[in-house]
Amino acid sequence: MPFVRIDLFSGRTEEQKANTARAITEALVQHAGCTPDSVQILFADVEKSDWATAGVLASRRGQ
Amino acid sequence: MPFVRIDLFSGRTEEQKANTARAITEALVQHAGCTPDSVQILFADVEKSDWATAGVLASRRGQ
Amino acid sequence: MPFVRIDLFSGRTEEQKANTARAITEALVQHAGCTPDSVQILFADVEKSDWATAGVLASRRGQ
Amino acid sequence: MPFVRIDLFSGRTEEQKANTARAITEALVQHAGCTPDSVQILFADVEKSDWATAGVLASRRGQ
Amino acid sequence: MPFVRIDLFSGRTEEQKANTARAITEALVQHAGCTPDSVQILFADVEKSDWATAGVLASRRGQ
Amino acid sequence: MPFVRIDLFSGRTEEQKANTARAITEALVQHAGCTPDSVQILFADVEKSDWATAGVLASRRGQ
Repeated sequence: MPFVRIDLFSGRTEEQKANTARAITEALVQHAGCTPDSVQILFADVEKSDWATAGVLASRRGQ
Repeated sequence: MPFVRIDLFSGRTEEQKANTARAITEALVQHAGCTPDSVQILFADVEKSDWATAGVLASRRGQ
Repeated sequence: MPFVRIDLFSGRTEEQKANTARAITEALVQHAGCTPDSVQILFADVEKSDWATAGVLASRRGQ
Repeated sequence: MPFVRIDLFSGRTEEQKANTARAITEALVQHAGCTPDSVQILFADVEKSDWATAGVLASRRGQ
Repeated sequence: MPFVRIDLFSGRTEEQKANTARAITEALVQHAGCTPDSVQILFADVEKSDWATAGVLASRRGQ
Repeated sequence: MPFVRIDLFSGRTEEQKANTARAITEALVQHAGCTPDSVQILFADVEKSDWATAGVLASRRGQ
């Protein structure tokens, strides 16, 4: 039953997400004893103008 | 104070979400002793290319 | 594939959660066209000292 | 390491989000002993048709 | 309607959380045009053995 | 900046979580072009009495 939510910057291709999902599922099967069918992974794209670190939006870093 | 977050595939109509929200609120009132005003429900649409089960993106199932 | 996360105050019994889960699943099947098997529901208990509304922790309301 | 996720109605400007992120980071530094660099804040815009209170979607309030 | 979820290391006192919640609510009122009553904040304590950065659990940093 | 949240049944050891975190970070570096330092992973343990599939709590499956 693991449910994996990944918040990440927009811009990855479907191919990148497909490969990432496969590799993360393998990681959970190998190291956490999950069955492949039980693993659900959700990618949530986030714009740089919606993510701040140390109080500064990523879209404004280097300004 | 229940906060209900529902991640689901894109494509439901506003009418479906309105009916679902009403029914889920009733369920929480009836079975969990919540007051209607305290129940907040958030629908988060997810594309099939952003959701993987058993390591395979839903957009690539059956390929 | 709906994944439903419910943050709510601690204190509900397993029976209340079982009935709530069943009713919410029925709501999603009836109103959002989901299949029962696709519906996952996660209850996350929250202490009143961890939940604030209007800037006041629930544990300090009425103080 | 605090990770702050803010679900809020769509419509805020980047300037509003930048100021909010700065002020929330300061709040966590001042009151929770965090270092600025450790604070990550994610804004998730939500449409009124995706948020219900007391069983009614915000987009249908007042109808 | 902003819902603010804060995942942070365990160990803050209720007083720290109360002050943080008040300051974050003020930040959202002042910079994002929210009303105080609409702001909900949830603190989720996380153990160091449940949080990894750069592939290393916080509980194992410096080992 | 990927933030990975993993909701999973309680019971994994710290060693399992450490190995899983390392492997998932490698997956994100290799397939999604992330830097190791940017990857944060949070494990959230969930009791079987708090997780329902098809309307039935995991703690009541097989009853």
